[in-house]
Amino acid sequence: MRKIAADRFRRLFNRSLLLLPRHSHNHPPFPASSSISSHSLFSPYRFLFSTPFSSMASDSPFPVTAQNINPKVLECEYAVRGEVVTLAQNLQKDLQANPGSHPFDEILYCNIGNPQSLGQAPITFFREVLALSDHPALLDKSETQGLFSADAIERAWQIVEQIPGRATGAYSHSQGVKGLRDTIAAGIEERDGFPCNPDDIFMTDGASPAVHNMMQLLIRSENDGILCPIPQYPLYSASITLHGGFLVPYYLDEATGWGLEIPELKKQLEAAKSKGISVRALVVINPGNPTGQVLAEENQRNIVDFCKQEGLVLLADEVYQENVYVPEKKFHSFKKVSRSMGYGENDITLVSFQSVSKGYHGECGKRGGYMEVTGFSADVREQIYKMASVNLCSNISGQILASLVMSPPKVGDESYESYMAEKGNILESLARRAKTLEDAFNKLEGVTCNKAEGAMYLFPQIRLSQKAIKAAGDENTSPDNFYCKRLLNATGVVVVPGSGFGQVPGTWHFRCTILPQEEKIPAIVSRLTEFHEKFMDEFRD
Amino acid sequence: MRKIAADRFRRLFNRSLLLLPRHSHNHPPFPASSSISSHSLFSPYRFLFSTPFSSMASDSPFPVTAQNINPKVLECEYAVRGEVVTLAQNLQKDLQANPGSHPFDEILYCNIGNPQSLGQAPITFFREVLALSDHPALLDKSETQGLFSADAIERAWQIVEQIPGRATGAYSHSQGVKGLRDTIAAGIEERDGFPCNPDDIFMTDGASPAVHNMMQLLIRSENDGILCPIPQYPLYSASITLHGGFLVPYYLDEATGWGLEIPELKKQLEAAKSKGISVRALVVINPGNPTGQVLAEENQRNIVDFCKQEGLVLLADEVYQENVYVPEKKFHSFKKVSRSMGYGENDITLVSFQSVSKGYHGECGKRGGYMEVTGFSADVREQIYKMASVNLCSNISGQILASLVMSPPKVGDESYESYMAEKGNILESLARRAKTLEDAFNKLEGVTCNKAEGAMYLFPQIRLSQKAIKAAGDENTSPDNFYCKRLLNATGVVVVPGSGFGQVPGTWHFRCTILPQEEKIPAIVSRLTEFHEKFMDEFRD
Repeated sequence: MRKIAADRFRRLFNRSLLLLPRHSHNHPPFPASSSISSHSLFSPYRFLFSTPFSSMASDSPFPVTAQNINPKVLECEYAVRGEVVTLAQNLQKDLQANPGSHPFDEILYCNIGNPQSLGQAPITFFREVLALSDHPALLDKSETQGLFSADAIERAWQIVEQIPGRATGAYSHSQGVKGLRDTIAAGIEERDGFPCNPDDIFMTDGASPAVHNMMQLLIRSENDGILCPIPQYPLYSASITLHGGFLVPYYLDEATGWGLEIPELKKQLEAAKSKGISVRALVVINPGNPTGQVLAEENQRNIVDFCKQEGLVLLADEVYQENVYVPEKKFHSFKKVSRSMGYGENDITLVSFQSVSKGYHGECGKRGGYMEVTGFSADVREQIYKMASVNLCSNISGQILASLVMSPPKVGDESYESYMAEKGNILESLARRAKTLEDAFNKLEGVTCNKAEGAMYLFPQIRLSQKAIKAAGDENTSPDNFYCKRLLNATGVVVVPGSGFGQVPGTWHFRCTILPQEEKIPAIVSRLTEFHEKFMDEFRD
Repeated sequence: MRKIAADRFRRLFNRSLLLLPRHSHNHPPFPASSSISSHSLFSPYRFLFSTPFSSMASDSPFPVTAQNINPKVLECEYAVRGEVVTLAQNLQKDLQANPGSHPFDEILYCNIGNPQSLGQAPITFFREVLALSDHPALLDKSETQGLFSADAIERAWQIVEQIPGRATGAYSHSQGVKGLRDTIAAGIEERDGFPCNPDDIFMTDGASPAVHNMMQLLIRSENDGILCPIPQYPLYSASITLHGGFLVPYYLDEATGWGLEIPELKKQLEAAKSKGISVRALVVINPGNPTGQVLAEENQRNIVDFCKQEGLVLLADEVYQENVYVPEKKFHSFKKVSRSMGYGENDITLVSFQSVSKGYHGECGKRGGYMEVTGFSADVREQIYKMASVNLCSNISGQILASLVMSPPKVGDESYESYMAEKGNILESLARRAKTLEDAFNKLEGVTCNKAEGAMYLFPQIRLSQKAIKAAGDENTSPDNFYCKRLLNATGVVVVPGSGFGQVPGTWHFRCTILPQEEKIPAIVSRLTEFHEKFMDEFRD
């Protein structure tokens, strides 16, 4: 058992390049005195010091044990639903069984971009169309007119007609129903002002399977690397680990609002190459998760040129394209940017990920999404199609929703005004919530927080005392995990420790969504402020 | 380029154990005179002789080429949507553009278990509940009473209440909504007469992701093997290949109605062990795909004992549990069989896969399913949960449908009679279609076809002449592929060559679904018969 833990530790350690970003000298070095003598980009603490190894026994009655499963599975982490969330779920059960047993009466899940779980209502038009296409028999009944808007009925007819045999319960083409891909392609063209081929669209159950597909395609061995931002959304680190590749980190510059700087990309690429890593792709998340920045168009052009020069696939996570909250920034797709630079199919290999889970609609549970795949040769595209076909197709309701998101009601449609009002209310409220939480974080002692220009998150930095860091070490956990668990136990607010996303070693952050209902924000701010003051007092050096 | 092809060939060759089953001497040996000098269990022909390598160029403008992607992706095959289906799609486009250009006026897709694509109507009650839970605002409106059955409204209320915050658009618990898992567990208990823990249920987007999860968990390297039936549903071979493991074949005995014999399992297990393969699991598909047999309970007991003795995980594909067509056979879940033998959690590690795509409902496009996971230690189960959490959750409509399938209307419910009539009509018609096609195949010269006791397929064997085999070799394809392409071009009927499923070397089969609408079956039979007679005459030795 000890040997496995040591092996895992070595593997994790070896896998992180540990190249520090330019600004790292501004941060306190990792304390040599702590019980944690080294570190990876992502917290290995949970695995090294706690379960699952504590429960392993060599006389297990089970043929499958933690010692003999795929080590890549053991190694993979996904903090958004990790240890802190498990603790929160236990607290919630406890609150139900013993009301009043904790200093709060509800758990506030700020760990995950899941708007409807926190009371956001779905967009009415989208749900009307979904209900009608789930039960097309309704379309023939006169009572339906009184229950649904006219344009929802018309759209559902269109969609049902686009599905071969009107079979909404059949497997579709493995890339998704052709008519729905036509609609999505038209939406992309309208967004970008450049052509889009429906055959470039691969519809998926949310964006996650699309990311896995690309990692599976590109990663041949542990010598293949993927450039990923740090901090990053841990789907990327998890997927790279599961597919046996190497995460090559590039650091976003917190001091310049999580800037993505080309010299940093070059430095990390060269460092990876010098270690024998073949770097295949660059992941860019725009708007940023967990960092909330929106890239400037000029910056995007430089990124496109970098990928072109270095022969990297540009994997553009654009799932927050509708979530921009500041007037001075605008979302531009990487496809639009590269086409506006005059680059076509043969110049840049680009994959754009989109999801119905984000935006103003937040339809996470529907698991709809697509990737737009451009700049691949015909034979590689055939392989991508084959991979899609092994899983048959993505779910049809998600496919329908993805087409609606890319083609919402237009001026003159019966639903247009109510749709615009629902959308506007949600986005304006998200912008206000982002600003209120940002201001609140920046008022806390030792905390700085960049603006959320977009996406659904804030990623404040907390400067922790040596005493707090030591206390975390005594509990065999990382300082940010220690802080987040204390916060949860005191307030019921669930946030995710920065180590789940990666951060400059020696700095500590957490990710907090901007999604709690607006009327709950003041209480969250006051509970968080009160907790933070007490925490800082308790652990003052 | 030649080197890559040679490497691939060697790899494919090395990966097949080439242990022949007992009855293999009954079949003609593989013709040494053909241009195909060796063979794997699954057809390597397409990759060795045709695209994608023909289009590869070393001066490709693309950074990603077929030479530098993950070789496991290249190696993986999925014939159900493979070459013959691509040809069919092209013919379909051709028919639309130039009606009358072929000797048939429609393509009949008998390649895939996709009932609703061939005109099967969905179960009304299921769709009513789905529509109501997609747009819960309907539940508050009085007009809804006139459009939906009372029990569908009541069930939708129950379901919406089971979802935290009534948020049908939120990510659920990564295993699926707890209340829906409770319903499924109750359905399993009713089916089996043994307890089921809702925490053992992991809901998935169809059964495919569940199978991938298990392969990812169990396969550490190419030295890990999974015992799979031959013939098998090619999801298994594809998933094992993608995860870098070794398919250890065991042959079903065609002469005894695709019997699954323990001595054959033992022989193949020992052979694999002697080659240094660590065999982790046994896949059993019951009812069988593509073979249609339903296992006898006594046989299942022996399989359970075999897994227990050998320390193998039993991966039970039970997605066709509702599809049994013969009175003398009954479906028994492996969980029920093992519990009835007195084996509990600590005695046997068992995963049962279920899907909403099959049964009498055939809701393929909804991508609902679950796996019931028993006999794993707490720490391994934690790893399975973590893998599920990386993809957040499966789609909620699919989850709802899975709960409905396991808990359909009961006696006394308003929908009960219409539900039973819809279900009965579909299953009785499937039984008639299976019998008609089976009889038709058995009347063809050189063709024998076992009964479809269950599932949705027939897997007839065609004995081909040396002349036909030589003609296939001249076209660089396998004899069964040659036959199926000829059949398609002559009749528009799409079936899948046996090489996509694996077959005793030197024997040739195809898989044909029993799903075309009943009124189309006579035409299919006559077209197929006419084609077959001509084919046999043309290639008579």
